[in-house]
Parts: sequence; C-alpha cells; structure tokens
Amino acid sequence: MKLSDLKAPEQLKSLPVSDLEEIASEVRRVMVDTVSVNGGHLASNLGIVELTLSLYHVFDFSKDKIIFDVGHQCYVHKLLTGRYRSFSTIRQEGGISGFPRREESPYDLFNTGHSSSSLSMAAGMARARDLTGGDHRVVCVVGDGAMTGGMAYEALNDMGNTRTRVIIVLNDNGMSISGNVGALSNYLTYLRLSKGWQQIKGNVSKALLKVPVCGKRLHDLFHNFKDHIRNIFINDKFFSSLGIRYIGPVDGHDIKRLSTVLAKAQNMDEPVLIHVMTQKGRGHEEAEKNPEGFHNLPPKGAAGGKAAGEEVCARLLEEAQKDPKIAVVTAAMTRGTGFASFAKRFPDRLFDVGIAEEHAVTMAAGLAAGGMKPFVAVYDTFFQRAVDQILEDVCCQGLPVTFLSDRAEFAAQDGMTHHGLYGISCFRAVPGLDICTPVCLEELLAMVSRAARGAGPNVIRYPKRFDPLPAAVTGPFEPGKWHVLREGASGSIIASGNMAGEALKAAGLLEAQGISVTVIGANSVRPLDETLLADALRKGPCFTVEEHQISGGFGSAVCEFASLSGLPSPRILALPPRFYPHGDRNSFLETWRLNAVGIARAVGKDVRHEDKG
Amino acid sequence: MKLSDLKAPEQLKSLPVSDLEEIASEVRRVMVDTVSVNGGHLASNLGIVELTLSLYHVFDFSKDKIIFDVGHQCYVHKLLTGRYRSFSTIRQEGGISGFPRREESPYDLFNTGHSSSSLSMAAGMARARDLTGGDHRVVCVVGDGAMTGGMAYEALNDMGNTRTRVIIVLNDNGMSISGNVGALSNYLTYLRLSKGWQQIKGNVSKALLKVPVCGKRLHDLFHNFKDHIRNIFINDKFFSSLGIRYIGPVDGHDIKRLSTVLAKAQNMDEPVLIHVMTQKGRGHEEAEKNPEGFHNLPPKGAAGGKAAGEEVCARLLEEAQKDPKIAVVTAAMTRGTGFASFAKRFPDRLFDVGIAEEHAVTMAAGLAAGGMKPFVAVYDTFFQRAVDQILEDVCCQGLPVTFLSDRAEFAAQDGMTHHGLYGISCFRAVPGLDICTPVCLEELLAMVSRAARGAGPNVIRYPKRFDPLPAAVTGPFEPGKWHVLREGASGSIIASGNMAGEALKAAGLLEAQGISVTVIGANSVRPLDETLLADALRKGPCFTVEEHQISGGFGSAVCEFASLSGLPSPRILALPPRFYPHGDRNSFLETWRLNAVGIARAVGKDVRHEDKG
Repeated sequence: MKLSDLKAPEQLKSLPVSDLEEIASEVRRVMVDTVSVNGGHLASNLGIVELTLSLYHVFDFSKDKIIFDVGHQCYVHKLLTGRYRSFSTIRQEGGISGFPRREESPYDLFNTGHSSSSLSMAAGMARARDLTGGDHRVVCVVGDGAMTGGMAYEALNDMGNTRTRVIIVLNDNGMSISGNVGALSNYLTYLRLSKGWQQIKGNVSKALLKVPVCGKRLHDLFHNFKDHIRNIFINDKFFSSLGIRYIGPVDGHDIKRLSTVLAKAQNMDEPVLIHVMTQKGRGHEEAEKNPEGFHNLPPKGAAGGKAAGEEVCARLLEEAQKDPKIAVVTAAMTRGTGFASFAKRFPDRLFDVGIAEEHAVTMAAGLAAGGMKPFVAVYDTFFQRAVDQILEDVCCQGLPVTFLSDRAEFAAQDGMTHHGLYGISCFRAVPGLDICTPVCLEELLAMVSRAARGAGPNVIRYPKRFDPLPAAVTGPFEPGKWHVLREGASGSIIASGNMAGEALKAAGLLEAQGISVTVIGANSVRPLDETLLADALRKGPCFTVEEHQISGGFGSAVCEFASLSGLPSPRILALPPRFYPHGDRNSFLETWRLNAVGIARAVGKDVRHEDKG
Repeated sequence: MKLSDLKAPEQLKSLPVSDLEEIASEVRRVMVDTVSVNGGHLASNLGIVELTLSLYHVFDFSKDKIIFDVGHQCYVHKLLTGRYRSFSTIRQEGGISGFPRREESPYDLFNTGHSSSSLSMAAGMARARDLTGGDHRVVCVVGDGAMTGGMAYEALNDMGNTRTRVIIVLNDNGMSISGNVGALSNYLTYLRLSKGWQQIKGNVSKALLKVPVCGKRLHDLFHNFKDHIRNIFINDKFFSSLGIRYIGPVDGHDIKRLSTVLAKAQNMDEPVLIHVMTQKGRGHEEAEKNPEGFHNLPPKGAAGGKAAGEEVCARLLEEAQKDPKIAVVTAAMTRGTGFASFAKRFPDRLFDVGIAEEHAVTMAAGLAAGGMKPFVAVYDTFFQRAVDQILEDVCCQGLPVTFLSDRAEFAAQDGMTHHGLYGISCFRAVPGLDICTPVCLEELLAMVSRAARGAGPNVIRYPKRFDPLPAAVTGPFEPGKWHVLREGASGSIIASGNMAGEALKAAGLLEAQGISVTVIGANSVRPLDETLLADALRKGPCFTVEEHQISGGFGSAVCEFASLSGLPSPRILALPPRFYPHGDRNSFLETWRLNAVGIARAVGKDVRHEDKG
C-alpha cells in the first residue's frame, strides 16, 4: 500500500505488518525530501516512524485520543491523517504547521509546542471520559527529554494516585535535544542496558534452542512473549513507586512487537507507561550520526551568519575568563541559545538542567545568593514558564540574575506556540526587574558586559538576528538612556529594541513625503528614559513601535508614564493580543503594519492630521 | 537553658539533649501563646520543633546554609535566631514576618512563600559553594506537600545527575495542607509503614534481649544504630532511581536520634535526603487532632462571616447539581478556596492535584477538551505559576476553562510573597483570556453562573471578602457592560472590581466639597466597556482606581484603549511596581492613597485644576 492511497488512518488497523513497513519507508522518503527544502524537525520524526504506525495499527484514533508532547515529532502523524498532499507546504506561510494544530485536523487535539504538558492533557481527557461514560483510550507520546519537566512528574504523581486509565508512550531516544540530561535519563539508560534482562534474554534463548524436538518452537514462543517476560525481569523502581505500571523496554522500530505490547496495554485498567527505545534520525545515515545537527533544520536558503546568541556567548566567554563568578544556566537549550562553546570551555560553569525552566531560574537565584553572577539563557517564549520564579525567587530578593531572552520576536516557521510576542507583558508583571531591549547587536553585547560587571535582576530581550542599523550604537550601556537616532521636527517615533531599523526606514519614507520625524531607539522598557520621553511626548505627536502585543507591552509602559506625568499619550503601534500562525517575518510585519511602510503610513496620517488641526 | 538566655543559635551546638528538650517545651509555649493572638501557622511549626533544634544542634548556620521550603514552618527558626523578643509582633504591621525575610536576619536566606522551590535554591547555593571553594553545608527543609510540586522533581533530577552535595530534610507529616495528595505521598507512607523494617526491628530487638549476659547491651547498641541499619532494610526506590541517597525514616521528635543521623549526613559527599517523620500540631492536643484546622489561624478578633470563596462554592454546587459537566480543579487548596463542601458532595468532580499549579491548569485544559466545564480555583498569587499553561494549553485553543482567582488583593498578614497585586498584569499577558473583576459578591456569583452555562477562557478575580456597596449589583453578568454606580458632572472615577466601594465613598467625600463625579464599576479588564469608557474619557477628567500594581494593570489597559482610539488618557491611581511587606489592608490602602480619602484627594486636586484651566 502506498501513502497516497491511504484515505483514512483507520485503514492502517487492518494492514499486515509488511505493508506498514513499506509505508514506513515511504514516510521517511517524503519527510527527508520535504524537510531538506522547508527545514524543520527531521531526526525526531525519523525516529518515530514505526512507533506512530504501530499506534495507528492498534488504536482507533477516530475514537481514541492521541497527544504528542511538544509536537515536533508529529510529521508521521500528519502524513497519516490527511496531510500527505499538503505536506510539501509544512512550515511555510499559509501551509500546514510543523506542530499539531486543531484547525488542521480533528486528529490534532492540542496546539502543542511547549514541553512536558501532554501527560496533564491526557489526564484531563481521561477523566472527562470517565465522567461522561466514554470508553475510548487516551494515549500520550512523550520523549525522554520532556520527562525532565516538572509538569510530567506532577501528572504522574496525580495519575498514579487516582489510577487514571491513561497510556503513556515514552519515546526514549536517549537524548532530548542535545544529549542526556538529568538523573531520570540515567535511570532510563539503566533500564535499557539492564544487565539482568540482557543476560537472561541471551541465556534463555540459547537454552531453549538446545531443547530437543520442540526447542525452536519454544524459542519462538519465548521471543514472541519476551516483552511480557521482560516486565518480570526489568525491575522498574521509579515509575512503580509513583503508582504507574511500567512496560518495557521495547524496540521502537519493530512494528510487530510494538503492536503486541500496545495491544496489551490498551486493555489495562490503570495508568501504564510503555518504554519504547527509538533511534533519532533512524534510516538517514547523516542524521543517525549527528541527531543534534538534524534536530531542527533551517529552510533551504535561510539567512546564514552568526546568530545573536552566539555573539552573546562569545562575549560572555571573554567576561568569564576574567571573572570566575560568571555562570550560565540553560534549560536544554545550550545549542539553541548559542552556548555550545561556553559549555566546552567552562563545563563546570554551564548548567543545563533539562527542560525545567522553573528550576533553571530558581537554581540561578541560588547561585546568585551564593555569590555568583548567573545568566539564564532560554527563548523568550519559554520564560513564560518561570514568571513566578523570576518574581518570587529572583526579584523579591533583588538577586543579580540576568535573563537572556533569545528569539524575542515573531518565531517565523516555528509558529503559534513559539512566538516571542508576549515577553514584555510577562516581564513587566514582575516588580524590580529591569527590561533591556538592545537596538542592535553591538548594544546587546554592551548590555551583556554591563551585566557581567554586576547588575540587579534584569532581562535582555533580543532576536535571532538584528536588522542592521545604518550606524551601530556603540559605547557602554547606561540604563534609562535611550538614543536619538535621527532628529526631525514633526513628531517622534519611539522604537523598542530591534524595531529601530524599521523605524529609521519609515523616517526615510516620510522624509520623501516632506515629513521629518525624530526616531528614538528605546533600549529599555524599564527604566524608561523619562527625560527624553517627556520631551517627545510634550512636543508630540509621538508613536511607539514594537514587535510585541499591545497588552502590557512597551507602548503600554509609555502610556502609564504619560498618565502619571499628566503628559499626552503616544499612539501605540503594536500587535493585537491574539495568537498568530507561522509564516514569514517580513510578511507578518507587513500584515500588521509594523514594517517601514506601515509605520510611515500610520505616522504620516496622524502627522498630517495634526498639521491641519 | 531558657530561650531568653540564648544569645546566638550557635550556642545550641554544645547544649546537652536535655537542655534542648527543655527549650523545645518553651518554644511550643511561646508559639501557642503568640499564634492564638496574632494568628498564623501553628500546626506545622509545632511539628518541627525538635527537627529545627536538632539542625541547630548539629550544623553551624553561621557558616552552613538553611532554607525552609514555603517558610510557614520557620517560627522555631525565628525564635532561635534573634527574634525571640520581637516574636510577639509576628505577622503584625511593622512586626516580624510570618515567613523568612532577608531583611530580618542573616539566617533568612530567601523571602520564601511559594512552595517547592527550596531544592532549586539549595542546588544553586551548593554549586556556588563548589565553584568558589567553600566547604559549608547547604540544607533545605521541605515538607511532603511541597514534594508534589514539579520544581522539586526538577531539582532532584538535576542534583541526582550531577551529584551536587546538598542535604534535603524531608519533613513528612503525612499531610501537606489538607491531607495526602499524590502517589509520592502514598509511597512515603509505604516507607513509613514498611513492614520489612517494622518486623525486623521488633524481631531483632526481642531476639537481642534474649541473648544471655550482653543481651541488653546489644539491644542498646542496635537501638543506637538502628537508623544506620534501617538504610539497609528500607529499600527506597524513588529517590535512589533519581540518584539521591535516601536515609530514613527517622522519628522527628527524637532529638538524640535525629542529631545522630544529621551528623552522619553532614559528611556525605553526595545529595542526601533524610526522611523525617513528624506530627503536625505535636504537643497541642487540639492541633494534633485537627491539624488542618490549625494550619493557618486567623488573628484574634478577625472579621468573620463566609469568605467569598465559600459563596462561590455554594453557587457552583447548585450549578453542578444541574450540570454533570461542571468540575473543579485545585492545587492543595480545597479548603483555602472554600471548596470543602464541593469535595464532599461531588468527590469525583473535584480534583485536588497537590501543589502543582501547572498540572492543575493543563489538566483542566484536558477536561475541557474532553467536554467538561472545569473551574480552577487557587489564590491569585499562585496563578503566577501557570502563566505559560494558561497561555499555551488553555487560551491557545480557546478552551472553556474558568480560573477562580481568590485573594486577588493585598494579602495582609501573609505578606510579601502572597500579595494578589500582580495578577492582572499576568493575565493580560495572555491573549484570548477574558478578565472579570466583580464589584460585589452578588456579581461574582452571577459571573460564576454565567461561566457554568458556558464561556470561553476566563478568569474571575475576587478578594476574600468584598467591601459592601450601598446597593449590590444584581442581574446576570454581561461581559463588556460596566456599571454606572453614581452620576456626576465633573469627571469620572472608574473603579476596578472591589475598589468600587472606596470609589463610591470618595465620591461622597467629594460631594461634600461641592464636586460631583460619576463612579463607574468596571467589572472586567478584558473586554473593556468601550462605549462607556470612550464617553467618560471624552468628557474627562477620568481616573482609574485599582488595588493592583500600575505595570500592565487595569489603568494600563484603559490607557492602551485611549491611545488606540485617540482619546485623552485617564489618570491612573494604582500601586508602584514593587514588593510590599505584610500589614493591615486599611492602612496599606491609606499609605498608597487608594482609600476613599486618597482617591478623593487625587480627584479633587485634578478636577479643581481642570475647572481653573
């Protein structure tokens, strides 16, 4: 059977294993072809082909429910559930998403993207089923990396107590994004390599073959039931102490065996965890060798050059050579945030704590309380997970922790669940936290150096790559001192952080229309440059520009100041508070009128209006 | 030795156990006497007397570090570290705090208050020690309840992997705030009751006594070393699978034995967890019998009557009788949020998931996705812990979850780490979340009923008790329709939620000065009542009032609307974004000019100014 002939995933239930294996090959081909053009998560999806097919072979997901944790391993699922024909559009503007999306298919139950939440979702859906008299199965597929997140434990602790009937498929590829992290990971490896089982397996196999007459049959019987026997031999401690029934480990590339085990788990009346061993990058030579490099590929022809995070790392390396108190904490993002070389140079001063943002932040608070100068580096969207810890554990004691908030911008291909468009609102909720928004790479590095010399709690928000300014802002960073990047007579544009570039371009467009405006590069949301700001507001008209939602954002902060000071308000140019699909950043800024043309149009209209009035 | 003679806690190191036992009795007396007047956490502190004394007996906390998780069990620690004389002021305005406070003592390392963070803090401090060449011990004391929080697991997973030298003292009183929750709790009980140990202990004891001549000596030897032997007998599975050395269980009221075990743990070069069994309320007959009732006592003469949460529960009970789809989720706060009777009436529809706010929110998302109508009830300050889950797991899919945000106000005696003064900022960071702020109890209940009939993602923020209005707002709640509570000609006061009462009183004061103002009761932050608001802003002058910080708050939302609509800004009356100590709410509102007098003064000044201008 070919993938193109598949009308509904339920057809997979009745196919023989050989057909499923054929489909597996085709799925791999399609994924490699598409991802090599569009970019995306390759290694994790190559590793989960047989597992996904086995799940569809055993369960009926027109009734049963399936949730993929994080969701970056849902490509196989998408190809099987009506998105084969649209698969070539994955991650492209207007195309299908690289993550599950409810709008795309009834088989996508949640718009996932952040890690470790699927067990909680499954617990809720299972309880809803039990309360409404349903009898379907609820399955969640979760990677070993996601098991480092505290939410996963909270869900296990809850389900193991109430014995909620859920099937947890632990997709253990021995590495989250960048290698094993955490004690549980060691424990899973211990289970995988469990000497007891390996020895018994070998001995029993050999012994059975020696039995006269029916030895071969016994051997095969044993082989077929070995997953069952394995339950006896592998003495799980962790999951069973939490009241979760453990089954495994099972070879995640053996559809036949996997299906047998899944079918058995299907009818258990308790929370079950099936430990499936998979190989990241399976079936693709290069990806097998370098799964980390093939985790999330950029689209063909994507902008190259160093990411801002790598420059931050280089600067921090310099500072760390001079100052032994500098340390870096990250949550399974050493590579993503550009800190691989720091990890190499100072392995004892880089702490990758796993996908555990809350612990990362509070551990940094502990480092700071112990006299260190910690920097916590994750993406802007993931700091959402640690608002309470930033507030209670860092800022409430004014500890010198610096948050490096990378990808503080429209997340392009990663889309809806990853946009760094809500960070200012979250950070502004925290009293005592300075919020720095460099206007260019050079200023970002100056901020890093200043924080390395010592600063109170502060966050530095920056994009993956800066739009270059005509002239970089150099010199040391001084909080509360914004930059006048251009002077004009008919009003001001105050651009937050990286929007300075578009604002300057907008000023150029306005000049061509005979309107001259001042452009201010606002390199901080807290503190504001009250002198410069008051002056601009007084002269008016004044526009704030930010690549961020309106609610609680930069313009909002400026409005608060204006209100308290009895000054006229600025006009806010920002995004309505909503969720945005994936797409191209330029076209996103155009749509929401935050590119140079959009800004110039808004300013031009109001300035002319002002002139008349 | 008497408590009053204690100059420094280091003196406790050299005292004989009998002296420590004497001090224990005195500590209990002082705590019972003080808490019965001032209110506060009694049962947990009575349970930890001997444990705290043993810790000070063994460690030298002028060098070693100690962190109490949550911190509501720090009264003994306070009495031993220089706060015996000020203890009678605990939780009172200007007095010492009921939680650790860095400003009070060098022995208080963190301003704790939220649960499950001490292990992460300890991990950070221990690593700072290792990096800076220190050799002191880092100890954290954590309750079994706090172990249900995912952060605790994240820290164990991290420390067990890197083998960070930390001493975790698990104070297991068999209940967090309101009874056992979660599988780990069952597991701890299993360890406590472990048949193996109990039997062996009894048998060996008896057998040794029968040995002729030296039987008694052998028996005593065994008794002294039984904690050591116990390590062999009690086969811990959970902690050891995470790479944490488990020691216990140990009787938490036996200073001698505890000290022996702590002294041994002190020199271990790995992460160690000591499982200490304590009795909540120990030494106080009533508290022993009813530890939950003695968890957090109100101050003598505190306002009585039903809390708003209990009224919400009663209303939701009515709705749940009619609609089987209504369910309640809470995070170890069934009693605090007033939902005890719901738990009794519908035990299968109330889910207490432990101190696990992230799981609570996402589990509710799962319930909603499965067709239920879940309500998540915790205190406003604790929703800070689930901003990401509210955003990604609930609102990103527009699921019908209602958040009941109790104690959305100045937290009075609980203080700095508990104030509900940042909630609007956090909730406004989340796109697609409606934010309801009832002006009176009657409206709160109408909102609950509306949510029960079906609504998108929404949060209802309310105080423990409403200031009564001259006339309650009745009738069904309609989002985006604020109330004109009083009409006047010289401007408007727009009061958010419970501040309507103070605003009306302010209007009364202004009337006495010949100034008549309109008072609007704003029962929602999102959506705004744009019609009413635009009208009020246009007429001006306009004042917003809220018991909340300025940054990203209600006034901020109104300013954003004014900016987008080209209308004049209101003047915001709110709190500067900072941390506030515990105290009396009335005097807090007075200090920050948010009571009737303060509001009237601000409005009067501006209105008169306006008249002149």
